[in-house]
Amino acid sequence: FILPSFHQTLAHDKKPCKHLVLYYHDLLFTGTNEATATSAVVANKTGLGAFDFGKFIIFDDPITADNKLVSPPVARAQGFYFYDMKTNYNAWFSFTLVFNSTEYKGTISIMGADPLPSETRDLSVVGGTGDFFMARGVVTFRTDGKPTLTYFRLRMDVKLYECYGTK
Amino acid sequence: FILPSFHQTLAHDKKPCKHLVLYYHDLLFTGTNEATATSAVVANKTGLGAFDFGKFIIFDDPITADNKLVSPPVARAQGFYFYDMKTNYNAWFSFTLVFNSTEYKGTISIMGADPLPSETRDLSVVGGTGDFFMARGVVTFRTDGKPTLTYFRLRMDVKLYECYGTK
Amino acid sequence: FILPSFHQTLAHDKKPCKHLVLYYHDLLFTGTNEATATSAVVANKTGLGAFDFGKFIIFDDPITADNKLVSPPVARAQGFYFYDMKTNYNAWFSFTLVFNSTEYKGTISIMGADPLPSETRDLSVVGGTGDFFMARGVVTFRTDGKPTLTYFRLRMDVKLYECYGTK
Repeated sequence: FILPSFHQTLAHDKKPCKHLVLYYHDLLFTGTNEATATSAVVANKTGLGAFDFGKFIIFDDPITADNKLVSPPVARAQGFYFYDMKTNYNAWFSFTLVFNSTEYKGTISIMGADPLPSETRDLSVVGGTGDFFMARGVVTFRTDGKPTLTYFRLRMDVKLYECYGTK
Repeated sequence: FILPSFHQTLAHDKKPCKHLVLYYHDLLFTGTNEATATSAVVANKTGLGAFDFGKFIIFDDPITADNKLVSPPVARAQGFYFYDMKTNYNAWFSFTLVFNSTEYKGTISIMGADPLPSETRDLSVVGGTGDFFMARGVVTFRTDGKPTLTYFRLRMDVKLYECYGTK
Repeated sequence: FILPSFHQTLAHDKKPCKHLVLYYHDLLFTGTNEATATSAVVANKTGLGAFDFGKFIIFDDPITADNKLVSPPVARAQGFYFYDMKTNYNAWFSFTLVFNSTEYKGTISIMGADPLPSETRDLSVVGGTGDFFMARGVVTFRTDGKPTLTYFRLRMDVKLYECYGTK
């Protein structure tokens, strides 16, 4: 058992060693909004239930530091989500936060269920690279504002409990 | 290097700190079984080979503590699988076990290959939340019973080797 | 806090405890190359941008120890990638390396963004089984050779920083 000599921090008392608050903006492609759209349906809903079961969306969505869509992005969220419940809206996400700024360079990969009726939903941070080398933790989703048919916004609290990076 | 002060257990001798035995039931939507179906095809098989290469299924499948489909679910499995081999049935899964009972609240996220002809197949537990906060480990799949065109059942041995939760 | 008594190595100084150099070969199914193809499109590109946004490919690709397609495979890469950018080629991967040889038996699961214009791209190793039990780390992609419409090759440096296995 070799203790790591690079800077590793394991969070104690379940307090994160790193906490980022980020806002995720999803602008769905309708066929006529190409200039602004950042996500698109690649598989249509099935006939199972009335809540878009099977609808599959791929995204390259902007991430901002506050909840304003017009704010300069601090990262991109690249990945996909789909709807997967017969009786209510329920989603499942897998994606990577890609940072390429003066503040951070690197990635954080995330996956998990997103039961939309819940006020907060926890997904898992399963890995990271660069400034987020080997990160693990939890991301808490909160729907921010009122979704429309083509736009929704999430507040994401990214809480890392294993931090090996230098930042 | 800060030792965590919350309750962390790293498994030793490769014995899991937590072992759950669960049964997964997949009931495929045929177009006429909406009341009972829990999964649906969202992309059809391609013409590559004769083993459904490319067929992509999204699911919200019940998880029970024994192998009876009629038993009360103890969790849901939400995610997807697809077939990906030319010469035999071979699948790949990524999904989240969602617990919301008096016994457990939280999630376990899983991914990996499922080579169906093997009696046992090991996938990875890559993260968890709630009672399974920061879980890691291995899930062993075994096909249980005889699959039909619209139903198959898996025994899942979920073995966690990093346990940070309180349960 | 229980120190593990099985053989665990945490990498120090960010030097991997295990480093594999592997080559990944993707041969896309065109409809007429069934004998040699190892991947297939399951969802077509959308109309968002001019860089195949939404095109979704499932693969069971050979992995070799050198960059020759005719070399005997040492593993398979099973999973998927898709394109997800309006303004350039950018991909996202999630897959499992499946080893079943005298040298290694087990799996390594990987996910992350693949911004193709970058010379090197880092993805996350999020789990492993068998000889790669509980592996974590980083995989660096480099495009090797000149891609064609139906073939591309990646050099993958798989660097593990948590090694629990015996090999």
